[in-house]
Amino acid sequence: MLPLPKIQELLDPLFPGLMGVRLTEVTPERVLAEMPVRPDLCTAGGILHGGAYMAFADTLGAVGTIVNMPQGKRTTTTDSSTKFIGGARVDTTVTAECVALHRGRTTMVWQTSVRSQEGKLCAVVTQTQLVLDT
Amino acid sequence: MLPLPKIQELLDPLFPGLMGVRLTEVTPERVLAEMPVRPDLCTAGGILHGGAYMAFADTLGAVGTIVNMPQGKRTTTTDSSTKFIGGARVDTTVTAECVALHRGRTTMVWQTSVRSQEGKLCAVVTQTQLVLDT
Amino acid sequence: MLPLPKIQELLDPLFPGLMGVRLTEVTPERVLAEMPVRPDLCTAGGILHGGAYMAFADTLGAVGTIVNMPQGKRTTTTDSSTKFIGGARVDTTVTAECVALHRGRTTMVWQTSVRSQEGKLCAVVTQTQLVLDT
Amino acid sequence: MLPLPKIQELLDPLFPGLMGVRLTEVTPERVLAEMPVRPDLCTAGGILHGGAYMAFADTLGAVGTIVNMPQGKRTTTTDSSTKFIGGARVDTTVTAECVALHRGRTTMVWQTSVRSQEGKLCAVVTQTQLVLDT
Repeated sequence: MLPLPKIQELLDPLFPGLMGVRLTEVTPERVLAEMPVRPDLCTAGGILHGGAYMAFADTLGAVGTIVNMPQGKRTTTTDSSTKFIGGARVDTTVTAECVALHRGRTTMVWQTSVRSQEGKLCAVVTQTQLVLDT
Repeated sequence: MLPLPKIQELLDPLFPGLMGVRLTEVTPERVLAEMPVRPDLCTAGGILHGGAYMAFADTLGAVGTIVNMPQGKRTTTTDSSTKFIGGARVDTTVTAECVALHRGRTTMVWQTSVRSQEGKLCAVVTQTQLVLDT
Repeated sequence: MLPLPKIQELLDPLFPGLMGVRLTEVTPERVLAEMPVRPDLCTAGGILHGGAYMAFADTLGAVGTIVNMPQGKRTTTTDSSTKFIGGARVDTTVTAECVALHRGRTTMVWQTSVRSQEGKLCAVVTQTQLVLDT
Repeated sequence: MLPLPKIQELLDPLFPGLMGVRLTEVTPERVLAEMPVRPDLCTAGGILHGGAYMAFADTLGAVGTIVNMPQGKRTTTTDSSTKFIGGARVDTTVTAECVALHRGRTTMVWQTSVRSQEGKLCAVVTQTQLVLDT
């Protein structure tokens, strides 16, 4: 398994880097991360943009899949479904926990819960990752 | 209805601005926009990050709702579901068309189709917007 | 391609048969069907049960996939997302149109629109079908 | 709160009754139920039809909402998203646990996990219930 700092290094020049996603734990069972709610991640009213939750979660589900895949495989998200439950305010930090609901040979299903700094559930994202030959 | 340049101006300091979303048509029936696939919107392999599609679409569904809402109302996304169908390469531009499936008093449902520069369907995002009193 | 009456015959002893699903057109591009809103398909208040819409649509997406698959393949639904938009009354008949958003070698994506007898959109179901070796 | 036998009695003449859904626990926090996998709930190959999982779950999320609603309110599902993970064989019994991810005044979000008789996760259904004035 790639160590966390190596994965973070891969993410930094990409969209997760633009958003400021920081991985805090990566194991085959779960992925933890945090993201500061910068003004330029918000929507009107100073709350985190719905798209930022989804992009944050999508990143973690892909990381979780990658650390579970055999060599010579690649993955792509085929589906992602999000329930928005609460808002996260600008200048706080949201945290996410992504756990596997299923880790099969052909597909994996990951669910990410994003919480506000106060620990309130803000969004739940469930995604299917297809595992393909490279 | 707010004119397009005003809406674009509201988006620019927010997450859609960070991503480079440019509205190209806004009517009560549909919202069109484009987004250059910059390297920092991509995932590994130089293709647009799944989260960027979702955030792009989420923005358009919210804009569509806003231009349909009576005064004194606000909106929040309660749900968003995405099917990923194809990839969009770095240094191209993706376009999106967001149309209403339903425009009710309490909820609106918008569906956004994101296409590659060559016109190939890349992602379909369907979202529910709740319409609330301010 | 299996002719429509053969497909209907396969469905009849299964869950679609229990619900009274009747195929009315099957081509590789789309599948049409109807279903009488019997009292035992309803929820409280004499309107079609949300689960009945989803099961109706799931059937059509699977039929659409099957008529597009090469021999020696099988399919399974990996994901289904539904937006409920309006109700359908008991003792009417709902109709559904299922069209392909994507027909690839590994996955197909089908979207089903269910309408009331008066033609009003009641539900939109989008599903991903994985295509596997038998 | 309506007692479980009363709720079961309400369900029996409706779609959940047709499918054989049996509630086994109803509290404001969670709803448990079971459903025998009869041949007429299956798809080809003697496995539970995808639509039957969704209809089973939809029922439980609605029950969970109803036992949490203040008087004078009604509920409707606005959205349901399902990940299919494994199959359940004919002539076994599936069980479901439905728990609240969110219980707000305007919306509730319920997630149902359906398991095979052997306890293997088969499907996860996440649904949004809108709470409305009657």
